[in-house]
Amino acid sequence: MELKVKKEYFHQAISEVSNVISSKAQLPILSGIKLLVSTDSLTLIGSNGDIFIERTIPKEIDGFDVLEIFQTGSVVISAKYLSELVKKLPDDISLKLNENQSVTIQSGDIKTKLNGLHAEEYPTLPVMDFRNPFELSSEDLIEMVKQTVFATSKSDTKPVLTGVNFTFENGFLTCAATNSQRLSLKKYEVNAGLIGSFILPRPTLLELVKLFGGTSPSITLFISGQNIGFKSREIALYSRLIDGTYPNIQGLIPEQSKTRITLDTKQLLKGIDRASLFANEWRNNNIQFQIIDATKLKISSKSTEMGEIEELQLIEELVGDVELNVVLDGNYLMESLKAIQSREVSVHFNGSMRPVLIHGKGDDSLVQLISPVRAK
Amino acid sequence: MELKVKKEYFHQAISEVSNVISSKAQLPILSGIKLLVSTDSLTLIGSNGDIFIERTIPKEIDGFDVLEIFQTGSVVISAKYLSELVKKLPDDISLKLNENQSVTIQSGDIKTKLNGLHAEEYPTLPVMDFRNPFELSSEDLIEMVKQTVFATSKSDTKPVLTGVNFTFENGFLTCAATNSQRLSLKKYEVNAGLIGSFILPRPTLLELVKLFGGTSPSITLFISGQNIGFKSREIALYSRLIDGTYPNIQGLIPEQSKTRITLDTKQLLKGIDRASLFANEWRNNNIQFQIIDATKLKISSKSTEMGEIEELQLIEELVGDVELNVVLDGNYLMESLKAIQSREVSVHFNGSMRPVLIHGKGDDSLVQLISPVRAK
Repeated sequence: MELKVKKEYFHQAISEVSNVISSKAQLPILSGIKLLVSTDSLTLIGSNGDIFIERTIPKEIDGFDVLEIFQTGSVVISAKYLSELVKKLPDDISLKLNENQSVTIQSGDIKTKLNGLHAEEYPTLPVMDFRNPFELSSEDLIEMVKQTVFATSKSDTKPVLTGVNFTFENGFLTCAATNSQRLSLKKYEVNAGLIGSFILPRPTLLELVKLFGGTSPSITLFISGQNIGFKSREIALYSRLIDGTYPNIQGLIPEQSKTRITLDTKQLLKGIDRASLFANEWRNNNIQFQIIDATKLKISSKSTEMGEIEELQLIEELVGDVELNVVLDGNYLMESLKAIQSREVSVHFNGSMRPVLIHGKGDDSLVQLISPVRAK
Repeated sequence: MELKVKKEYFHQAISEVSNVISSKAQLPILSGIKLLVSTDSLTLIGSNGDIFIERTIPKEIDGFDVLEIFQTGSVVISAKYLSELVKKLPDDISLKLNENQSVTIQSGDIKTKLNGLHAEEYPTLPVMDFRNPFELSSEDLIEMVKQTVFATSKSDTKPVLTGVNFTFENGFLTCAATNSQRLSLKKYEVNAGLIGSFILPRPTLLELVKLFGGTSPSITLFISGQNIGFKSREIALYSRLIDGTYPNIQGLIPEQSKTRITLDTKQLLKGIDRASLFANEWRNNNIQFQIIDATKLKISSKSTEMGEIEELQLIEELVGDVELNVVLDGNYLMESLKAIQSREVSVHFNGSMRPVLIHGKGDDSLVQLISPVRAK
């Protein structure tokens, strides 16, 4: 293995595959990056055992030579040292694999040797069937993930709830996530024959947002047995799916409401943020909603030790019962409001003990449900 | 106590005094900010027990009303909650002290009560004698501190070495710091009758840099018994001095050298940074200096486990013996080079076991000494 590569592109690729690499990896070889030099490209692979990231540097990018290949081959080098070193080197970097698996890395008058490991010892990528690709707008997919992934369960008691359920059915892709106290459900129209239901792990989705956010316009999705792959031109992400059956949460969405109010989304978010002032003094960050004079929403919170905070916000529209007194978790409220892009938000109530439904005004492609905090 | 204050100025002042406040303060009252409203200003005081910061907001700043005072008084409020709350409030903030020491804080439709503590319980500021002020350029004082404070000892074995020694003598202020393995010494010409030697604690100096960096052009210094005060128009910092006698380190500076080389300061710093690649695998971050062909400096470092790194840098000027092989601590080298502003640096050697002297070429107002690492 012998090649010369432009620092900027090499460093960018190292950073991207390093996302999933831990310096405290269980298998020592997983603390390394696998470098694979073929006749026309350099491929970098990083993994934490569950997720694999594969990044390719072609010989030429936008008509500009970024890579010269003298000899093909492969090796695994410490991600930490390779990344720190490359960051500090000047522009042209030469790499050459020596017989004892050490790699000579040279740039101008700077010469380094890093001890490497045999590439054969590196875990193999999941075997994927690339015959049924499914293409999605990168921007839309990432938005769907951001609008649902926060609602997954952080507890391992029910493993299926730690992921987001992707369901392809009747020309729609539905993403659903819940931790049993709140849920988020996003529907998106797709042109695809693919039918099925898959549970994607939360860490995989967070990685997807980091890797593909704001890069290529489309992402190709492959599902093959218990594995999923996401691919753009230069980067691919592979992960296992979560095994099991996801509960049917669409049936939980109430069809009617006793009270529906419309408020300014950003103002409401700011108000709840302020009312969360004493949140870390509480086990639950309890925020009280009360309707005042049928025209204002009182948002309040109280800590016997530290003090109290309250504010009034104008209700832009109210339909139904004007009596309302509900206590909700401030973090759940803030997370759900952050996912809504409409300027105004509709909030539906069915009494103080029934879940509250939240969606952007006039937009039910994203709906969220939050169960009230039980009186203590 | 009753007043109205502009958010921007109030929040800035809260941030500044909060620098030294710990939420885990030993005395609970020290986790609060003391607010003191007089007829013409609002003063905020924060402290960690050793350092006090006093910040004043006048009624008017640059012809702009920032403060309205309705009733004088004082109270202590939780720094954490006051800071978080004020950050999230709109522009005009009203504060009113209630009978039970709670403070009503109001801004528009937002109303908060924070439980406070009696101002009388707050520790008093050190008693200072303001009769012998000594004025210094803020920029110069901060530069002197930055150029020496890093060289103080992090170990408490010799308390005097944990501070920087300020000596006023013969029209010069000298700042000296050492941890016994390296030292930094800065001389600065002053027009002052003040004579004496004082040891300033490291945390006080770090706070000084944070508070006064880039604000008022001059700082007034007061020394009074075992206390020191720094003051600009709106802000004051008070601290205890370290008790004890500082060693005479000026005598340690060698007058002659066997070898003197001149190098590009930034290039040398970058080279040592690169050669420190394996630093965290070592107890000491050992960097080897060797002169090659009387024209180049070889900078190298080696880890049996991870690999090795070396580079050659052009020596711009060499005087004396061309044989050189010294092992130095990479962190000490980097810290000392960062303090040097000259484009070129002179490095003096007296054999492999004698301290290395470093200063900017043609500038001996700042000199630094580093002892070699002993062979193991």
